[in-house]
Amino acid sequence: MLQTKVLHYFDHNATTPVCAEVIAALPEFAAAGGNPSSIHWGGRQPKNLIRDARKAISEALHISPLEIIFTSGGSEANNTVIKGLFDYYHTAQFLAPEQRRRTHFMCSAVEHPSIMKTMAHLEALGARVSYIPVSREGVIDLKFYAEHLSEETALVSVMFANNETGTLFPIKQMAEMAHAKGALFHTDAVQGFGKAPLNFKELNVDFASISGHKFYSIKGSGVLYMKKGMNVSPLIHGGGQERHRRGGTENTLGIACLGLMAQRAPLVQDKAFEVSKLRDHMEARILTEISDVTITAVETPRLGNTSSLVIKGADGETMLMSLDIKGYAVSTGAACSSGNPEPSPVLLAMGLSRQEAQNSLRVSLGWETTLEEVDGFVEALKAVVTRLRSIEHEEGETYHV
Amino acid sequence: MLQTKVLHYFDHNATTPVCAEVIAALPEFAAAGGNPSSIHWGGRQPKNLIRDARKAISEALHISPLEIIFTSGGSEANNTVIKGLFDYYHTAQFLAPEQRRRTHFMCSAVEHPSIMKTMAHLEALGARVSYIPVSREGVIDLKFYAEHLSEETALVSVMFANNETGTLFPIKQMAEMAHAKGALFHTDAVQGFGKAPLNFKELNVDFASISGHKFYSIKGSGVLYMKKGMNVSPLIHGGGQERHRRGGTENTLGIACLGLMAQRAPLVQDKAFEVSKLRDHMEARILTEISDVTITAVETPRLGNTSSLVIKGADGETMLMSLDIKGYAVSTGAACSSGNPEPSPVLLAMGLSRQEAQNSLRVSLGWETTLEEVDGFVEALKAVVTRLRSIEHEEGETYHV
Repeated sequence: MLQTKVLHYFDHNATTPVCAEVIAALPEFAAAGGNPSSIHWGGRQPKNLIRDARKAISEALHISPLEIIFTSGGSEANNTVIKGLFDYYHTAQFLAPEQRRRTHFMCSAVEHPSIMKTMAHLEALGARVSYIPVSREGVIDLKFYAEHLSEETALVSVMFANNETGTLFPIKQMAEMAHAKGALFHTDAVQGFGKAPLNFKELNVDFASISGHKFYSIKGSGVLYMKKGMNVSPLIHGGGQERHRRGGTENTLGIACLGLMAQRAPLVQDKAFEVSKLRDHMEARILTEISDVTITAVETPRLGNTSSLVIKGADGETMLMSLDIKGYAVSTGAACSSGNPEPSPVLLAMGLSRQEAQNSLRVSLGWETTLEEVDGFVEALKAVVTRLRSIEHEEGETYHV
Repeated sequence: MLQTKVLHYFDHNATTPVCAEVIAALPEFAAAGGNPSSIHWGGRQPKNLIRDARKAISEALHISPLEIIFTSGGSEANNTVIKGLFDYYHTAQFLAPEQRRRTHFMCSAVEHPSIMKTMAHLEALGARVSYIPVSREGVIDLKFYAEHLSEETALVSVMFANNETGTLFPIKQMAEMAHAKGALFHTDAVQGFGKAPLNFKELNVDFASISGHKFYSIKGSGVLYMKKGMNVSPLIHGGGQERHRRGGTENTLGIACLGLMAQRAPLVQDKAFEVSKLRDHMEARILTEISDVTITAVETPRLGNTSSLVIKGADGETMLMSLDIKGYAVSTGAACSSGNPEPSPVLLAMGLSRQEAQNSLRVSLGWETTLEEVDGFVEALKAVVTRLRSIEHEEGETYHV
């Protein structure tokens, strides 16, 4: 590709660049071309790749290798838990009547679409779903949660960290509250892996989702953590892979790459503090040098790499495109809904006005982001905002593409 | 890996070695690291990779690019059609009463586990499922099919070619019979792609499944063909990817590799006739030089690369392991159930006795298999069978590991 300008990636919550070590390992991993289920020589290399990856990932997450189900990504992992438990409670024989009664599901109001739309699908199938409110400060409503959680609740799903604002939720406390009512607890931790220490045992969750491409590995691979003793219907029925919990020939390449990155997780997590200092430096400069900017959920515990800005008088989509021209990649919301002219449902759910949501920009740093890049970004943003505000001033209304 | 002997791969129906061109392209494809949904520069390269692959694959299959849904493989594609249609008929608003009545599903008795187990799951959810018998000659029972097909049938799923015996089914005729009753038709064509010309338009099917790793690409990618106008509930709810039909960040690498192989499909298909001559040569030698061998479904139209042998007095699993020691990779049944001591359910369903199924061996050639390899294989098989039969003779019973 002919690159006529230096490109700076500030959209690590959408996806991460693939680590150079992963890219270098691809040909060797792919050459292990047999079917891992084969018992002849062709199956041995891929089987070993999967076994080693399972071990590395389980160590990084402080779980047992047998508690890992490899999936095609975070969305599949999320769908597997929610639909799988719903299906299991509808089809399993020898189920306790206490379990059959559980037709109520809960999640936060700011989950990823792979949770929100799956919950909506369960509603269409007859389940009752409650959405736990989150304030504009990014605080989840534990009072609502306690009031709605009941002996009928099958599953609660609350994300480890929000993809748009970076806010962290009190997973351990919420899992304990669920367990006290006999409900199970899932956390979508795709934004956590590599950005914060993750210990699923200590968090005491029953299920958790991880995605490879959010942590410098290739797209199309993920992990569902399923605590020993848990049962859900497979989302993909088929051969006996993943101990009969997920059919389909294993994505050896994706699994091996995820395993390679899991070995590097401590290294990357060590960089998290430095990344958060860069983010804080960036936010301090923006607040000082650009007027009328607020940072969403700034007072709440957040991922150290994420900044959700509301910049008065500057349209998010237009800022994104103007910054893109200058070589800076940022986002207005989740990448999954980019190109969608509607403002972020997450920010709206947190109580921001449509105008505020439309003036929002998400900036997410990575472990290779430098101080020079951050300073360059602030200068670029200043120039863009100044220009947009002058246009708005001339036209007498908010400039909107 | 230290290889102390030359290895010969005769198990192409389990999976195929990854094509050298695909391996060479991996680093470049993976370096296109952005999220295809991003509207900044990071999204352009992966978006282009996906668009190009979609075009190449649609041309290879004679369908429209918009009729392609990328999946994590054949199993996901199969599950999507079956569960997705069942769910759609249960949840869609504005459905015709005629559609709501359709709670009957059909498939052949020799489908892959990703069909069989999914159908069994529908039964647990309340659907009625009929399994169409297949004779030991590999002929599907069209009389049974016609008798059981009705105005209540939602979907019929019959594989294009059987993975264990290679037998081809009359897909076009069966699809027309289904349509005459208003039912939809799906074919699991994972064993067909690259081995036989595939034209989904001409076959007149509504859905079809393809797998990348069965055609010299990497594992973890596949395609669901969904004819224009068809609707099923997504198996994976999430972001708006694949025109809202499959959530989850796209597996750019897997998709690009599948696209690369699709461009080579005509080349590989041209080799299919040569492969079939090699297979016929192999079968002729085996029948001449080894006594008491039968070839399952030999008189029925079959894939040109597949041979399903029943070798009296020689246990399949033991033959597999003895051939493995000599460097030859073969299979006793589907790889997905390898290591399972039960004889192949497909062969049992076709009416072979348990003993015959246990004495079965599947040999499947690839486009790079040579005459020398085939001749070497026949010699190795002869030696193995002779030894096993002498042991059996000594012990006075069938030798079984």
